[in-house]
Amino acid sequence: MRLRKVAGAEDRLNENKTYFVSSPEENKGIWKSVFSNENQLHVEIGCGKGGFIVENAKKNPNINFIAIEKYDSVLIRVLEKIENEDIPNLRLVLFDANDISLLFGDKEVDTIYLNFSDPWPKNKHARRRLTSSIFLNQYKNILSDNGQIIQKTDNRHLFESSLESFCNNGWSMFDISLDLHKEDEPNICTEYEEKFSKFGPIYRLKAKLKK
Amino acid sequence: MRLRKVAGAEDRLNENKTYFVSSPEENKGIWKSVFSNENQLHVEIGCGKGGFIVENAKKNPNINFIAIEKYDSVLIRVLEKIENEDIPNLRLVLFDANDISLLFGDKEVDTIYLNFSDPWPKNKHARRRLTSSIFLNQYKNILSDNGQIIQKTDNRHLFESSLESFCNNGWSMFDISLDLHKEDEPNICTEYEEKFSKFGPIYRLKAKLKK
Repeated sequence: MRLRKVAGAEDRLNENKTYFVSSPEENKGIWKSVFSNENQLHVEIGCGKGGFIVENAKKNPNINFIAIEKYDSVLIRVLEKIENEDIPNLRLVLFDANDISLLFGDKEVDTIYLNFSDPWPKNKHARRRLTSSIFLNQYKNILSDNGQIIQKTDNRHLFESSLESFCNNGWSMFDISLDLHKEDEPNICTEYEEKFSKFGPIYRLKAKLKK
Repeated sequence: MRLRKVAGAEDRLNENKTYFVSSPEENKGIWKSVFSNENQLHVEIGCGKGGFIVENAKKNPNINFIAIEKYDSVLIRVLEKIENEDIPNLRLVLFDANDISLLFGDKEVDTIYLNFSDPWPKNKHARRRLTSSIFLNQYKNILSDNGQIIQKTDNRHLFESSLESFCNNGWSMFDISLDLHKEDEPNICTEYEEKFSKFGPIYRLKAKLKK
């Protein structure tokens, strides 16, 4: 997504106490207490404008959702979308995915969504892709025993690289789709997905740690 | 491929002593002696009309090739293509892939090609796909220590199923392409591939046993 700087975005986020969590590392291992329930925890890394996670949270009130985004100018768009709504099972976090293991305790997360992540097309940047072995090793620790990762992308090279990375780092894969919008199953779209799915296939995989 | 019965195909194959191997199980474990050299052995399971393996064999005289096909009416087309040519590193075998482990000894094969295999689209026939766990377990035994499988197909569901099967049965995958004809690399086409690649992407994966 092209990034337009929004003046005062971080201040405005910090003012909102309903959705925005200003010192999220302090909740490491105790996120259930933030939501005051024992429900599952689903996390989207790189939530963009939030269309996917907001709709998901509304449809699944018995699951807790955390939207993680690196850029305040993007996360403010999510807040603007929901600040007049009541979605008690959703929180917004401004955070860099590189440090994801500072944010969650062992086995604390049940599902990680990676939607249309930055493809980092150059080989020299392969380690920065959110499905490189560096990230997968962090996800291993924070995912619950039956936890899963669900990835969607329209970027062929990112998906090829992800298939290899999951397979070669001890994960099993299931529900792979090489043209998700042709499947006969419900799918919550991101804003990007709505716009770009007409230009080519949307790829999707799910992965679990091998037992 | 639609199959047109060719009268006398098996007899005509049996008459040819240059390329056709009439009792192939007798060579299990001793295929090198058939070729009278120590070169690598590459096998195509389901060679169809043979365009791929014939061109491959001509381009790689220092590799031995065995084209396996279940139907005599198809394999005769390969013989007709080459009977007036001299390709000493190629043999034709009429055989059912279900019994592939009767054909090769432990670690005897270096590369297995699976090109545009029957997709067996119904779930109840999933075991018949040439990348089901039943077949992968047979390939495990006949492949050499650094041996590999190279699969190409234009069938999305077969490829999705193959990706999951390799990943979940102890193989590593590499050089995955979700649109092979857009890659900047040499590719020997099958007859089917020439014809159908204009209608959609050709998928390709390579797999090796995890060490």
